[in-house]
Amino acid sequence: MAENIVLSNTEYKVVGTRPIRHDGTDKVTGRAKYGGDFQSAGMLFAKVLRSPHAHARIKSIDTSKALALPGVKAVITGQDMPMVLKKDADKAAKTASEKVMASAKALYKGHAVAAVAATSSFIAEAALELIDVRYEELPSATQVLDAMKDSAGLLHDDMTTNDLGEQTEKHSNVATHFRYEMGDVKKGFAQAEVVVEREFNTATVHQGYIEPQNGSALWNADGQITVWCSTQGAFTAREALATVLDQPVSKIKVVPMEIGGGFGGKIPIYLEPLAALLSKKTGAPVKMAMSRAEVFESTGPTSGANIKLKMGADKSGRIVAAEAQLTYDAGAFPGSQVTMGAQCMFSPYYIENLLVDGYDVVANKPPVAAYRAPGAPIAAFAGEVVVDEIAEKLGMDPIELRLLNASKEGTERLEAPPFPVIGNVECLEAARDSVQYKTKLTGKHRGRGVASGFWFNIGLQSSAAISVNADGTINLVEGSTDIGGSRVSLAMQAAEVLGIPAEDVRPSVADTESVGYTFLTGGSRTTFATGWAAHNCAQDIRTKMIERAASIWDVSENDVTMTDGVFQHKSDPDLKFTFKELASQLNRSGGPISSQVSVDPRGAGSAFATHVVDVEVDTDTGKVTVLNYTAVQDAGKAIHPSYVEGQIQGAVVQGIGWALNEEYRFNDDGVMENSTFLDYRMPTSLDLPMISTVIVEVANPGHPYGVRGVGEVPIVPPMAAMANAIYDAVGVRLTDLPMSPAAVLEALWAKDGEPASLQAAD
Amino acid sequence: MAENIVLSNTEYKVVGTRPIRHDGTDKVTGRAKYGGDFQSAGMLFAKVLRSPHAHARIKSIDTSKALALPGVKAVITGQDMPMVLKKDADKAAKTASEKVMASAKALYKGHAVAAVAATSSFIAEAALELIDVRYEELPSATQVLDAMKDSAGLLHDDMTTNDLGEQTEKHSNVATHFRYEMGDVKKGFAQAEVVVEREFNTATVHQGYIEPQNGSALWNADGQITVWCSTQGAFTAREALATVLDQPVSKIKVVPMEIGGGFGGKIPIYLEPLAALLSKKTGAPVKMAMSRAEVFESTGPTSGANIKLKMGADKSGRIVAAEAQLTYDAGAFPGSQVTMGAQCMFSPYYIENLLVDGYDVVANKPPVAAYRAPGAPIAAFAGEVVVDEIAEKLGMDPIELRLLNASKEGTERLEAPPFPVIGNVECLEAARDSVQYKTKLTGKHRGRGVASGFWFNIGLQSSAAISVNADGTINLVEGSTDIGGSRVSLAMQAAEVLGIPAEDVRPSVADTESVGYTFLTGGSRTTFATGWAAHNCAQDIRTKMIERAASIWDVSENDVTMTDGVFQHKSDPDLKFTFKELASQLNRSGGPISSQVSVDPRGAGSAFATHVVDVEVDTDTGKVTVLNYTAVQDAGKAIHPSYVEGQIQGAVVQGIGWALNEEYRFNDDGVMENSTFLDYRMPTSLDLPMISTVIVEVANPGHPYGVRGVGEVPIVPPMAAMANAIYDAVGVRLTDLPMSPAAVLEALWAKDGEPASLQAAD
Repeated sequence: MAENIVLSNTEYKVVGTRPIRHDGTDKVTGRAKYGGDFQSAGMLFAKVLRSPHAHARIKSIDTSKALALPGVKAVITGQDMPMVLKKDADKAAKTASEKVMASAKALYKGHAVAAVAATSSFIAEAALELIDVRYEELPSATQVLDAMKDSAGLLHDDMTTNDLGEQTEKHSNVATHFRYEMGDVKKGFAQAEVVVEREFNTATVHQGYIEPQNGSALWNADGQITVWCSTQGAFTAREALATVLDQPVSKIKVVPMEIGGGFGGKIPIYLEPLAALLSKKTGAPVKMAMSRAEVFESTGPTSGANIKLKMGADKSGRIVAAEAQLTYDAGAFPGSQVTMGAQCMFSPYYIENLLVDGYDVVANKPPVAAYRAPGAPIAAFAGEVVVDEIAEKLGMDPIELRLLNASKEGTERLEAPPFPVIGNVECLEAARDSVQYKTKLTGKHRGRGVASGFWFNIGLQSSAAISVNADGTINLVEGSTDIGGSRVSLAMQAAEVLGIPAEDVRPSVADTESVGYTFLTGGSRTTFATGWAAHNCAQDIRTKMIERAASIWDVSENDVTMTDGVFQHKSDPDLKFTFKELASQLNRSGGPISSQVSVDPRGAGSAFATHVVDVEVDTDTGKVTVLNYTAVQDAGKAIHPSYVEGQIQGAVVQGIGWALNEEYRFNDDGVMENSTFLDYRMPTSLDLPMISTVIVEVANPGHPYGVRGVGEVPIVPPMAAMANAIYDAVGVRLTDLPMSPAAVLEALWAKDGEPASLQAAD
Repeated sequence: MAENIVLSNTEYKVVGTRPIRHDGTDKVTGRAKYGGDFQSAGMLFAKVLRSPHAHARIKSIDTSKALALPGVKAVITGQDMPMVLKKDADKAAKTASEKVMASAKALYKGHAVAAVAATSSFIAEAALELIDVRYEELPSATQVLDAMKDSAGLLHDDMTTNDLGEQTEKHSNVATHFRYEMGDVKKGFAQAEVVVEREFNTATVHQGYIEPQNGSALWNADGQITVWCSTQGAFTAREALATVLDQPVSKIKVVPMEIGGGFGGKIPIYLEPLAALLSKKTGAPVKMAMSRAEVFESTGPTSGANIKLKMGADKSGRIVAAEAQLTYDAGAFPGSQVTMGAQCMFSPYYIENLLVDGYDVVANKPPVAAYRAPGAPIAAFAGEVVVDEIAEKLGMDPIELRLLNASKEGTERLEAPPFPVIGNVECLEAARDSVQYKTKLTGKHRGRGVASGFWFNIGLQSSAAISVNADGTINLVEGSTDIGGSRVSLAMQAAEVLGIPAEDVRPSVADTESVGYTFLTGGSRTTFATGWAAHNCAQDIRTKMIERAASIWDVSENDVTMTDGVFQHKSDPDLKFTFKELASQLNRSGGPISSQVSVDPRGAGSAFATHVVDVEVDTDTGKVTVLNYTAVQDAGKAIHPSYVEGQIQGAVVQGIGWALNEEYRFNDDGVMENSTFLDYRMPTSLDLPMISTVIVEVANPGHPYGVRGVGEVPIVPPMAAMANAIYDAVGVRLTDLPMSPAAVLEALWAKDGEPASLQAAD
């Protein structure tokens, strides 16, 4: 009974339709070339030696035995990193380098300490065991609250806490404490009829993309470096490589291979600089790829977090004050997304009085990376559970309470100008009006939960080039790596302008030397910003084609119109070309037509989502089954509704995994105990119903087609929606993630007492 | 004592300098990826079965045994060609298809009749022997005069002769007879004091590029075809493939690999369509590459030709009339370059009265392909030998005679408007003033020869894209495959506009989906036309950067100037950016800057050359040794003088080979007997002195930098220059090519009588 509804605002010829993606055949037939498919003659294979300790000083590394192994061509350690060798390297560059490979201290189990290039991956692997590293173990902490304790080992000897904007003298693992404030919370709480105060803890989770990180490189004899990798941003990877390798960007060419999922986790570089340095040492192309355990242990997952939240509402249901303390671990280096969590937490609501304290804390685990709407899902989990509890206490429908407090155009918010046109209310209304919400849920231990979510979305730089083929098709070259169908969503935006079918566009993703600078695929920006570049480029092609038609007809270009792909003289009906006809004449009427444009658009439109989930809880096992799920989201304009729906469904599934099962389980030594997909439990299609979607379209006035961006916000509501549904089903408020069967059982037992059968067994 | 002189007309900062080519390291270290380097997972290898007969009807082909061989995945024959299967295919498309693979008749030894794809090239090769083709042999002729005889077997039953523009009923191997006329030759010859009349024969020669033809293809499940090949024109290869495969161009993507020489011979497609069809049958990528013997026997060499020429001059040395009959073989299908030969033959001179008859004749050898200045060298051989003889008879210096008659701006010519600004006189003067020409040649059996040459050069469509990197470099994407250093010559033209060094440009050659349409690398057009595109694109970048500087400074863009890469406010000296400084600010001041332009320039400037060669003839063996060689040429503007010199030197070497040694030796059955580099003798560096060059720069007013194009004209004069030098050395006028030791000896014996020693042995 799952359904996918689009509440469309405007009709276009191409935009809003559902053509088959251009890369579809390649991907379903196994022809698409991912990073792991890279091959080159004379290629070496490299492997990384990683710290077995969560925190340890590297006293010495002896690579001589490894180098002596036949087939081994080179070994590098932290001491070979250009930023370690460079005396006056700046702090940010040094940090970027240490993230790639530790020089003096290993800061987490899995931190790279050396790498070996050999003629086969087996030899490289064998050689790792021959590298003799002497460590001095240090105290470690993987959990954010533990890391904050004074007794915790300091990860960075030179790091002092920035407290409310001031760099203090205090050495601790707290990198930053900041505060966002609006109104007067004291005054606010004084008006409250209902106050809810709770503490939440969330576990570290991983994006769980299918394709492990990889990176191959050739450092050529002329100093030019080519890197082949699966990345979310070829240009940003190039910049990161330039920093770590101490090279100008133009010395590096990044060739983006197809990417098997990223979700934010494939923005940072990991293996690429090591492959490059090993290539420099050996003169040969070097290929690297991670194992799944390496992906878990050595690439950026999310923060684990602790959140304390107090929220009050008056009798009418108006939320009058909220006060929160967000503490996020950043992994081994400062830079969690706690600021974004703090800004997103209350964005769905207008709350006059707000006070948020945030803590960015380093801990002995891999440095966190972005994961869909980074920082927001954790905060929303806390916020939306408390909102649900307030609704419950007031006896209000949770959607009605949200509508009552909903932020809308002009609403004041933390750390940002008041909202422009947004679709928050429309999402809530669509959720309220959805089939699922209107259908009464019956059955034992079943419950329904609702939650909303907010994400900023971004714009930034993108480039696109178009050339017209003689058969009336166009080539579209763009700089955004295609993770979720952006080839087609960009092609459609160009096709719309030119009045041709999406199938008549041949899109391709270019390397960093073949198209203008394009910021990464992330921030839900690709269809928005690169789409805009494609739109503008198509406009330029349109103009040039009108000029050409005018020139062929020997009339003024002002007298030529172009509608639905037909060029026509305004008054002479005989002067008419279809796009195909004109395209076929270009080469003999003045030459080919091509164009390239770069944009840096303002006006990214924020996204809102409201999710409704029905669950059933097995009170014997604690297992939570999702019965129905409806995700409502304002896409601004869904260029290709199927891929918007896919993004929403995928994010919901990831959110459900985050809610119910996923977590990094560290032992006391800071070692992850479940670094396989067998033990790190992600949902499969067998675990879930089909996710219903409702796409709301509140056009973003800042984009030619009204696009907002869709990939991130749908992961914001699920955890709270699930918690609220579980509460509705069995009456326990779960405040820690994941809400695994064990956690659910524990909560049920805490509420109802342990079952007699188990008591007997105790 | 070789020297390279540039008589430069204009000074630029970058244009005219000699930076290291960007692809240099890749090419000298073996990193460049040629067609033969293509790899893909699951790739099959294919081989072609070729006709052992010079002319034969294909009665039947039984492929069953081949298909039964383990490892064989598919076999195709002419009956699988889309143009054979298509009922209403047009004639040109059918011919294009038959060139690739014979369906009903094999027209030359080496004509493809079937192809096998297998899991290894060895299996494919073995399978060829299992294909049972039944042929009916037919009479054949490989030499043009033989092919014209009524007794010759007709290659094309449906072909009738086009005689002076009229399609006659006459079935023969003469495809076309045309006539070009100017003035009144009868009247002209009446004024002549000296008349020379001679007949010439030239053998078929091959371009002799190092890299054999290759082609790999994947016909994807969605109907998209990707072809990887070494080609002179990715876009023209795409068009040719579209024709033969009966597909729209946008279904085909051609990825140009590096190319190991072409000289015109890598314009046609040979293996690519077969690889594509085998890929379609098997669903796998298919790789093909020729052996050297296949290159000789199955790719397009030049025409063999017969030329009759009569020329007269008055007492003053003025050439008053010329009458010529040019008969070129076209190989198996009509289309020799006899028309171009006819137009080029007399272009260095103003001759009031001209009559040229041309014959395009099919013969049982591979269809001819372009080879540097196609058609012109053969004609110039005849023309320049006769001019030399006239000078001799008049007792004039051969350069003075040429100067007296030299065509210049405004000179009337055959089949074209009067000449625009040309550098013919300047080349002759520079040759006269060259060190070599001014140095008296002494020694026994030594002689000096002079010859001039003309080539049109062309413009046509090109595209280039530029994006600016944050480190102040630019990326240049262009559609011309780089055979002779065009990456750098195009980069320099962009760099000049932007005031940056050539090293700060990262050029790349794009596939057919990644840049606008670009016509092939040939016709000496690349540096001219694609350079123009690069220039115009750089101009657009310059404009956008000026606008950006103005925007950053908040001033009018009209007040911003840009000179030598420095942006500056006209009146405020504080407002100043170097290119690098401004480039580094783009992403935070409005976004990246990129552009793409396509051009179809008129105004290609013709090229002239005058060569001087000194030889020594060994009268015992007939061996001709080149002592000194000075090649003078008008480049218009030498963008990168080293690569202009390289083009000239390479063409001279090929011309010397053509003059002295190279020829297809066919036996009576039409089988080439010397299809290896051991038996087909090309000059090596040990055979030759360093070639001196003088680059004359008579700017082409039709190009931003005055470029004319350089690659073709230097192969026009050498054969005549060599013949004239041999005459000067030993007094024999050789009129047949090659002037091999045997031919020289025969001529000497004919003049002086056979040596007594040999007479004794007879």
